[in-house]
Amino acid sequence: MIIVMKPTATKDNLANVVKRLENLGLRAHLSEGEEVTIVGVIGDKKTIANLEMNMMDGVDKTVRITEKYKMVSRNFHPQNTIVKVGDVEIGGDELVVMAGPCSVESLEQLKESAKAVKSAGAKFLRGGAFKPRTSPYDFQGLGEKGLELLRQAADENGLKVITEVVDKDDISVIEEYADVLQVGARNMQNFQMLKALGKAKKPVLLKRGLSATISEWLNAAEYIMTGGNEQVIFCERGIRTFETFTRNTLDLSAVAAVKELSHLPIIVDPSHGTGRWQMVQPMARAAVAAGCDGLIIEVHPHPEMALSDGDQSLTPKNFSRLMKDLSAIAKIMDRKL
Amino acid sequence: MIIVMKPTATKDNLANVVKRLENLGLRAHLSEGEEVTIVGVIGDKKTIANLEMNMMDGVDKTVRITEKYKMVSRNFHPQNTIVKVGDVEIGGDELVVMAGPCSVESLEQLKESAKAVKSAGAKFLRGGAFKPRTSPYDFQGLGEKGLELLRQAADENGLKVITEVVDKDDISVIEEYADVLQVGARNMQNFQMLKALGKAKKPVLLKRGLSATISEWLNAAEYIMTGGNEQVIFCERGIRTFETFTRNTLDLSAVAAVKELSHLPIIVDPSHGTGRWQMVQPMARAAVAAGCDGLIIEVHPHPEMALSDGDQSLTPKNFSRLMKDLSAIAKIMDRKL
Amino acid sequence: MIIVMKPTATKDNLANVVKRLENLGLRAHLSEGEEVTIVGVIGDKKTIANLEMNMMDGVDKTVRITEKYKMVSRNFHPQNTIVKVGDVEIGGDELVVMAGPCSVESLEQLKESAKAVKSAGAKFLRGGAFKPRTSPYDFQGLGEKGLELLRQAADENGLKVITEVVDKDDISVIEEYADVLQVGARNMQNFQMLKALGKAKKPVLLKRGLSATISEWLNAAEYIMTGGNEQVIFCERGIRTFETFTRNTLDLSAVAAVKELSHLPIIVDPSHGTGRWQMVQPMARAAVAAGCDGLIIEVHPHPEMALSDGDQSLTPKNFSRLMKDLSAIAKIMDRKL
Amino acid sequence: MIIVMKPTATKDNLANVVKRLENLGLRAHLSEGEEVTIVGVIGDKKTIANLEMNMMDGVDKTVRITEKYKMVSRNFHPQNTIVKVGDVEIGGDELVVMAGPCSVESLEQLKESAKAVKSAGAKFLRGGAFKPRTSPYDFQGLGEKGLELLRQAADENGLKVITEVVDKDDISVIEEYADVLQVGARNMQNFQMLKALGKAKKPVLLKRGLSATISEWLNAAEYIMTGGNEQVIFCERGIRTFETFTRNTLDLSAVAAVKELSHLPIIVDPSHGTGRWQMVQPMARAAVAAGCDGLIIEVHPHPEMALSDGDQSLTPKNFSRLMKDLSAIAKIMDRKL
Repeated sequence: MIIVMKPTATKDNLANVVKRLENLGLRAHLSEGEEVTIVGVIGDKKTIANLEMNMMDGVDKTVRITEKYKMVSRNFHPQNTIVKVGDVEIGGDELVVMAGPCSVESLEQLKESAKAVKSAGAKFLRGGAFKPRTSPYDFQGLGEKGLELLRQAADENGLKVITEVVDKDDISVIEEYADVLQVGARNMQNFQMLKALGKAKKPVLLKRGLSATISEWLNAAEYIMTGGNEQVIFCERGIRTFETFTRNTLDLSAVAAVKELSHLPIIVDPSHGTGRWQMVQPMARAAVAAGCDGLIIEVHPHPEMALSDGDQSLTPKNFSRLMKDLSAIAKIMDRKL
Repeated sequence: MIIVMKPTATKDNLANVVKRLENLGLRAHLSEGEEVTIVGVIGDKKTIANLEMNMMDGVDKTVRITEKYKMVSRNFHPQNTIVKVGDVEIGGDELVVMAGPCSVESLEQLKESAKAVKSAGAKFLRGGAFKPRTSPYDFQGLGEKGLELLRQAADENGLKVITEVVDKDDISVIEEYADVLQVGARNMQNFQMLKALGKAKKPVLLKRGLSATISEWLNAAEYIMTGGNEQVIFCERGIRTFETFTRNTLDLSAVAAVKELSHLPIIVDPSHGTGRWQMVQPMARAAVAAGCDGLIIEVHPHPEMALSDGDQSLTPKNFSRLMKDLSAIAKIMDRKL
Repeated sequence: MIIVMKPTATKDNLANVVKRLENLGLRAHLSEGEEVTIVGVIGDKKTIANLEMNMMDGVDKTVRITEKYKMVSRNFHPQNTIVKVGDVEIGGDELVVMAGPCSVESLEQLKESAKAVKSAGAKFLRGGAFKPRTSPYDFQGLGEKGLELLRQAADENGLKVITEVVDKDDISVIEEYADVLQVGARNMQNFQMLKALGKAKKPVLLKRGLSATISEWLNAAEYIMTGGNEQVIFCERGIRTFETFTRNTLDLSAVAAVKELSHLPIIVDPSHGTGRWQMVQPMARAAVAAGCDGLIIEVHPHPEMALSDGDQSLTPKNFSRLMKDLSAIAKIMDRKL
Repeated sequence: MIIVMKPTATKDNLANVVKRLENLGLRAHLSEGEEVTIVGVIGDKKTIANLEMNMMDGVDKTVRITEKYKMVSRNFHPQNTIVKVGDVEIGGDELVVMAGPCSVESLEQLKESAKAVKSAGAKFLRGGAFKPRTSPYDFQGLGEKGLELLRQAADENGLKVITEVVDKDDISVIEEYADVLQVGARNMQNFQMLKALGKAKKPVLLKRGLSATISEWLNAAEYIMTGGNEQVIFCERGIRTFETFTRNTLDLSAVAAVKELSHLPIIVDPSHGTGRWQMVQPMARAAVAAGCDGLIIEVHPHPEMALSDGDQSLTPKNFSRLMKDLSAIAKIMDRKL
């Protein structure tokens, strides 16, 4: 931490700051500039992490220098991590596509979806059995029955299953059916659930919160990793901004940021990220060109009949077209699709 | 819902839209303007709530007309709701102040805090026993031991207790000790916890999410009310914006908005809302003048020793001064403090 | 400036950083922490202000320590500045209210407005003669004719005039009619206009840009002050956030921030800040309680006939009621109204 | 416009709304739903554009149906517009890259830059002669001398020139030297300058404002087009959000949005959009894959010596590498580079 003193700070102010640091077992390293004095704080990381100094007289502001996350950081783990799900590798040479409907509605819907996405080249079937919805009056999902249907449709088509966990009590049952556990944007800082996922045996896909900074997102992953589960995949799915034409603003620079700061893989969700099916195709292409490790895309055999998010779902035909585009771009990025 | 057709929409496009609505048991009401045709959708509310039409050819956009929340809405409950906690009334003539440290650290700290805030006029002791923290390496709270200390310090000083719930499994134990259950900003859309709080016997203070719209916030309260718990208090605590001088941007217009849209009481948290103790005093005064029903303020006997949020905590002396200011403004607002 | 090296930075990386600083005539002050080395940069302020170091190998990030604005800063001018407009003082004991219609429409409208706002206690008549409008098809204002009408209506009622400048070429003609020159939010970083206003003889009211940080706002005022015009008044008028219920989010913490960082006065515009006439009253009260030096409020004799911003204009009757409330709160704040 | 009545609106409220519309020469078209009545407003577009109804009793809210821009809209001009600059076509088959330093500093710097970007495949030399800077103490540019240097360096290398206009009074002199006139983000709603550019003879590149919605951006272009200059190119350059790791958040979905809503070309600026040279490469690739018509990129022969924006400038070597990547992606997008 660095403490910036005010230009008007007195010698006593500075002495008190130094004294307080020393009382806490820390050392102060002074740099006297032309206008202000700066105090570098050196010593035990944990003490510094919890240190607050802004209320002391003469202090202008404090600046934190180091991020709190460690296991997530590329500084401490320079080479890329590959998350393996059976024979599928996320973060390696492959570009992994996960696709399927927003909500699990019926076996027929899932079978039709699974067949379509498999034949277009997807490796995972996605679908929500437990749904987090803004209003209590919206469709809340089929629950465990939905998990069974997902598994069945996936197995019949040689696909892996990814589905969302909305309650830590459901983790054990979801682990029985799913290959990857998804944490939704609204639960990115549900720390109790993150801790529980640290004990889970399956990889976790951690979606970015609607208004989460990159730093908060990486710290959320640290909760899962410190719990013992090192198989974490990030997923950028759009942030909340002032723009209303799109449902969210898909922040593709987050792909480059995560690649720079962390060794973990990152995929992109252009369906929630835009909320408009017309935009899924260009933004999926852009995500691959930005360097992501995969995509998660909503595909529904009959979007106009969907119980949720029909406006952002692709038809199987459009999905198939998209996959051809992605395959060409993946090649340029040295990825297989 | 209203469907706006494109200027280039064909008669067939329009006919297909009408047909689809009729297939779903809805009626279409056409208004042909100079440039575009607008389709008003009439019929079963639930069907309309889940309707998505943007993927149909010729549709420019859809506009939702009615909010989904009902029990929370002033339209359906015009008079103000008063939440009673023993002899304290929130939403009535009183301006109710809740104060205390961010985290429960020790009995001594709490006793000192409780005595100070009581003598200055607060009605509630606040303090976190279970702490939601951005990093797994930060202090996570004392747990149930903290609840005991809170209750003891409050009882000795004739105060009520408010504390945060971060896990639905903790609700029953927290109910034993606390008078009001607080939902933090990060859990505002933790729908499983909201549902569980709908079964709780104690009132719930629902903080606004960092990037929650007023509408999403009211829908979150609807989850609690439809569960059976009608004792909900809103708490504005700052939203996330581009500004970094303050920790959050305290949105006091939310007080007026909630008063217009809902019958439930609303209080304000100027400590988290600004993140700077110097700003707590002016923003607390402003909140009262804006018409809030109460305040929740961080007070720590020794902010420079606090294990969390020391930068935004008032000393007992500053808190006491603030209460005198608030008392004068409360009078103008026809409130007792 | 402080340069934070990466944990993986080599000795050579560090040596290169130091060498580059020395080549530019600057000094490097090293603090070696447990994880990272920090380089404090000492020397000529202007050289440091333009220094960029992030592209050098081994550099993690750079942190700027000091703000660039000087004349605006309270550090260099501790006592409050009072801007005098004839016998009216902004920033002193008085709470100064400016009121009137959004656009100047006719002499009759202005006379009615001026009489009403004067009798309720306002000191300034406001009104736009040159209007900045989002669409070229919206009403663009009456121009110089509007200025004449404003001056006439104000003079007949003993009011000062404030009106917006949207083009630096209009400054000289507006100065003939107006007492204070207003810079709108969209022009806050129209640096050519700011420079021209630095040569103006009348005080300038500088509205905050829709997405301007406090720091950028203060730097914009520095442009005017370095040009030679030290009579600058800030005006908070709402920032752009994700919330859509209000037109903007009125950031009242900006009042406390500006008071802390600068010696210049600050007023608040609750009309544009909320965009809803129902919210003007509570937010105006809140602004006074937050410590602002004045208010600028839209009042229209017949809001439903207004050519612009009718939705956020008060009737004279509602304005008169509001002024009574404000007067009571002003007293508590040791202000005269 | 659609007027949504409150559920509690009386018959008289509705009658008054209808009466007011009729007094203005408009027609009301009523749809009575189960909960609320909706009033469609039909009639003269200009009258409706300026209509405000929220202050009337019984009105819940109003919803605007049609955008105000016309000439910019794809609805009124379905085929793509190609902006021709000599033999270079923007918006056609070509992917047009503009590159060069942030600020013009010297002839030597420009010659080196021009040679490098030309040999890598750029068609335009970019560089600022008049610089808009946040602080009055920052380097403000070389002015007309800078324009001469730009032209000379461009001509010697067979490049076109694009440079920024920061003052409408400079348009005529800049037109003498430049091929395309750039409007910076801070001036996107400098309506006086937009009107003046409507009279200019050279194409205009209109950057998106830091907090401008897509709709406001398109309306800004409408100002230029209604003035008589139909040669407008959009440029996405990042919006302001809560994220601070990047300087701005590059919104690539704006490319798809503009392509859907308008017939005008759009290019992307990944340098300002990210503020970090490391991110320029992935985001430039992503922009091409999203379907943009070109890119504008900061290249400086010696970024560490740049007088501005060195942190986001590519070296000629990195730029050359990037162009190879872009060429491969362009091919997939059926573009020539």
